[in-house]
Amino acid sequence: MIGAGIAGLFGVLSAAGARAASEGRQQRVAYHLADLDRVLFVLGNLQNHVDGVGGPGQADIRLVVHGPALRAFHAISADRNMSAAAVRLIKAGVGFEACANTMKAQGIKLDDLLAGFTVAEKGGVVRLVELQQSGFAYLRP
Amino acid sequence: MIGAGIAGLFGVLSAAGARAASEGRQQRVAYHLADLDRVLFVLGNLQNHVDGVGGPGQADIRLVVHGPALRAFHAISADRNMSAAAVRLIKAGVGFEACANTMKAQGIKLDDLLAGFTVAEKGGVVRLVELQQSGFAYLRP
Amino acid sequence: MIGAGIAGLFGVLSAAGARAASEGRQQRVAYHLADLDRVLFVLGNLQNHVDGVGGPGQADIRLVVHGPALRAFHAISADRNMSAAAVRLIKAGVGFEACANTMKAQGIKLDDLLAGFTVAEKGGVVRLVELQQSGFAYLRP
Repeated sequence: MIGAGIAGLFGVLSAAGARAASEGRQQRVAYHLADLDRVLFVLGNLQNHVDGVGGPGQADIRLVVHGPALRAFHAISADRNMSAAAVRLIKAGVGFEACANTMKAQGIKLDDLLAGFTVAEKGGVVRLVELQQSGFAYLRP
Repeated sequence: MIGAGIAGLFGVLSAAGARAASEGRQQRVAYHLADLDRVLFVLGNLQNHVDGVGGPGQADIRLVVHGPALRAFHAISADRNMSAAAVRLIKAGVGFEACANTMKAQGIKLDDLLAGFTVAEKGGVVRLVELQQSGFAYLRP
Repeated sequence: MIGAGIAGLFGVLSAAGARAASEGRQQRVAYHLADLDRVLFVLGNLQNHVDGVGGPGQADIRLVVHGPALRAFHAISADRNMSAAAVRLIKAGVGFEACANTMKAQGIKLDDLLAGFTVAEKGGVVRLVELQQSGFAYLRP
C-alpha cells in the first residue's frame, strides 16, 4: 500500500515534471501593481499569464499591491467586474498580497479587503525584493 | 582551410570576449513596453542602451510589446519618426516581439506590424518571464 | 591594538551577519525612476524600504534616475519637501545616480543636482542592467 502510494505520488510528480520539461522551467513571477488606473489591465495580464502557461497550477504567480491601486480592492467599494476577475485569479492560485504600509495609510484591516489577500508585513516593496531574491521574476505592467 | 576558418572564428570570438571582459559581462536585457504614450521614450532608451554598451552587437536586447503600445507599431498607421527609430534599432540587432494575445485583441496579423517583429506566442507577459528565467535583466521604463 | 581592532571589526561584522541571517539574505535593490509625476511616490517607497528592512544600513538600495524625473532633482528648482525626503534617504545610505544622457539633454552638470548624486556614465538604462547582473533586484514603482 505504501509502495503504491509512493508510486502514485511519483506518477503525479513525473507528469508535472514532464509537463514542466516540455515547456521549460515552471514560471515563478511577482507582479507589481501600484497605479489605480492600471488595475483592470494588470488583472487581464494575470489571466493571460495563467492561460499562457497552460492554466491554473502551472506557474507560481504573485501579485503585490501597494499605493493607490489598493483602493480598488477595498471590499466595500470594489467594482463588480474587477472583483469577478480577482476572484477568478485567486481561485486559479494567484497569490494576492497587500502592503501593510498602504493598509495603514488607507485605514483598513485585512477584513476590509476582498477575500483571499494576505498582508506583506514589511511593506510591498520589501516583499517584492524578497520574492526576486527567492527566484521570482518581476513584472511591472 | 578548415583550420584557418576555425582560427578565424576563434579570433572573432576572442576579440568579442576580450571586449566583454573589459566591460564586464555582456548585457542581456528584456524591455517591457505596454503604454502607448511611452513608445517614443522607450525607443529612445533602447537607442541609448545600444550606444551605451558601445554600439550594435555589444548586448542582447529584446523589446516585448503588449497592450495599447502595440498600436503604435501597426504598419498602416505608424508615425514616421517612430518607424525610423524602430527600423534603426532592428538593424542594430534589437529583437522586437509582439504579444499574440494583444495581436488577436487588436485584430492584426504579423504582416500588419512593422517589418522585423516576431510573435510571442504564449503572450508578452509569459515571454518576459521566460527571458528573465533565461538570464535576461528586466527594464520597464 | 591591531588584534583588538580586528576583533572589534569582526564583532561588527558578525552582529550584522547575525541580523542578516535572522531576516534572510540582505536586500540589494535598484529602483528605477523616470516619471516626473512619480518622484514623491518613489521617495516614499524608498523610505518605506529603509524602514521595512530595519533602518539605515540594513540593505543596499540604489535609485537610478533618468528622463523627465531628473528635473525634480535640479538643485536650483527643487521642491523643499522633495529635497528633504531625498537628503534623508541619502543620509540613510541610499545611492542616488543620475543618467549621463539625461544630464546632457537637460544641460546640467553634477553640481547642478542635489548634493549626493553620482553619475551613471553609460546611461541610466545600462546602469540598471549592470546592477541587476551584479545581483540587485529591480523595482519600478
